Amino acid sequence: MQLIDGKAVAEQVKQEIAAEVAKMVARGQRAPHLAAILVGHDGGSETYVANKIKACAVCGFKSSLIRFEETVTEAELLEAIDRLNRDEGVDGFIVQLPLPKHIDEQKIVEAIDYRKDVDGFHPVNVGRTCIGLPSFLSATPAGILELLRRYHIETAGRHVVIIGRSNIVGKPLANLLMRKDYPGNATVTVVHSYSSDIKEQCLSADIIVCALGRPRFLKADMVKPGATVIDVGTTRVPSEQTKSGFKLTGDVDFEAVAPKCAYITPVPGGVGPMTIVSLMKNTLLAGSKAVF
Amino acid sequence: MQLIDGKAVAEQVKQEIAAEVAKMVARGQRAPHLAAILVGHDGGSETYVANKIKACAVCGFKSSLIRFEETVTEAELLEAIDRLNRDEGVDGFIVQLPLPKHIDEQKIVEAIDYRKDVDGFHPVNVGRTCIGLPSFLSATPAGILELLRRYHIETAGRHVVIIGRSNIVGKPLANLLMRKDYPGNATVTVVHSYSSDIKEQCLSADIIVCALGRPRFLKADMVKPGATVIDVGTTRVPSEQTKSGFKLTGDVDFEAVAPKCAYITPVPGGVGPMTIVSLMKNTLLAGSKAVF
Repeated sequence: MQLIDGKAVAEQVKQEIAAEVAKMVARGQRAPHLAAILVGHDGGSETYVANKIKACAVCGFKSSLIRFEETVTEAELLEAIDRLNRDEGVDGFIVQLPLPKHIDEQKIVEAIDYRKDVDGFHPVNVGRTCIGLPSFLSATPAGILELLRRYHIETAGRHVVIIGRSNIVGKPLANLLMRKDYPGNATVTVVHSYSSDIKEQCLSADIIVCALGRPRFLKADMVKPGATVIDVGTTRVPSEQTKSGFKLTGDVDFEAVAPKCAYITPVPGGVGPMTIVSLMKNTLLAGSKAVF
Repeated sequence: MQLIDGKAVAEQVKQEIAAEVAKMVARGQRAPHLAAILVGHDGGSETYVANKIKACAVCGFKSSLIRFEETVTEAELLEAIDRLNRDEGVDGFIVQLPLPKHIDEQKIVEAIDYRKDVDGFHPVNVGRTCIGLPSFLSATPAGILELLRRYHIETAGRHVVIIGRSNIVGKPLANLLMRKDYPGNATVTVVHSYSSDIKEQCLSADIIVCALGRPRFLKADMVKPGATVIDVGTTRVPSEQTKSGFKLTGDVDFEAVAPKCAYITPVPGGVGPMTIVSLMKNTLLAGSKAVF
């Protein structure tokens, strides 16, 4: 069994990006600039945004943080987005989700110019990804592809089972893994809460991606020996063993499943660190106008 | 075994659309207006467009045909599209594919205002379909959903295997059948030319959709008793028994497979007639501004 070290890969990719940025700057271009809009003071969102800003520094990007209080109106937020859309000094930007209930998230996502949508959530980017056109890939699926690539894990003709059909992981990952490319060319099955055959499907899988958000859902008796298991789950489970009082727990019963696997991602330190790196890659692409 | 009569369903849907249009007109609204751009004189394209115009008449739509010779430039075509985009009297329009080689099809598709893209090929519609937002659905997948609906075929929790991963059938149909809706909530597997497990996957399927374009590909020993088989294939196979010298042949070895099925679509008369009906439904939606 080989552990897929997402943290190490993430560091490596950030160094590669930093080298690219250094070259850009040496050529007289400016460094890519990522802006982030953060509404309110939710602990999770604060941490995510802080980590993104930190990653920008490592990559040599310029970054800006635009803060609003919980009470911000939808109109004010749309105005800020419009300013960023028109600001030629900003290459890409994100609006950290979730947003307060009085704001229509989908409207916000669609207000972002798709050419600056480095989260890859805009319908134009989702559609272009699906069709196989150049696009900003959604962060988590892109991170998973990068891990498969760095560990040279074969996907062509293999059976990939994705547990979970979310718009930000399951569905886009399914579309990516069936395209004519590497990683891709896989037989792809998506199972979810309505599926009656999850165990059978998993047992036939060469690669299992767990993205349902149920701690320790995938048990050892659901995994074929030699399979690759990618764990997207990160549920905060109460724990007496940590200072914070909780422990990040994946969708995989790691201790029991790992011995059966050819490759497996841990939680934390697997897919998680790759998600921010995907955002960095999109920002580099946006800065070098490589997609649009 | 019950034959799914696509021709009869198509006629019924057209009558339902005509009744809707009659109501619109009685309310003082104008009838929906579909325009079609046809380049050159390819026999297949001529027939498809003629059938679409005929269907418009049955539905009570206004239709316009805009013809160009093979020699039309991309700029001229883009100009025509721009005029249709701005023409408030046109609710939706299509550019019949394929186009001559000197024209960039993807550029043409993306030039169409997505709010008039009744073929559902624009990235915005593909992306919105994928995310589960209101959109113009691509014609063939929408036609298949309609057949499943009219025959009350259960999809929730069932295993659907789609053979073929094209942008106009396999991929969008996979996205639609996994969404939280009826038809949908299915375990969806997409197999294709790289898949090594097509037979095993098909044998476990409750519903098989063949959309690979290889005559008689699906054999009886690949089908579980009681399965539903949807045949999207329409290959022109040379035949001495027809006046035209060819016979439309599906991807299913119909005579051998049919006896094992709960439901099966014939070729011709199955999915084919539904494709034009989906275009009519999109045109009705465009005319009543029900999507955008």
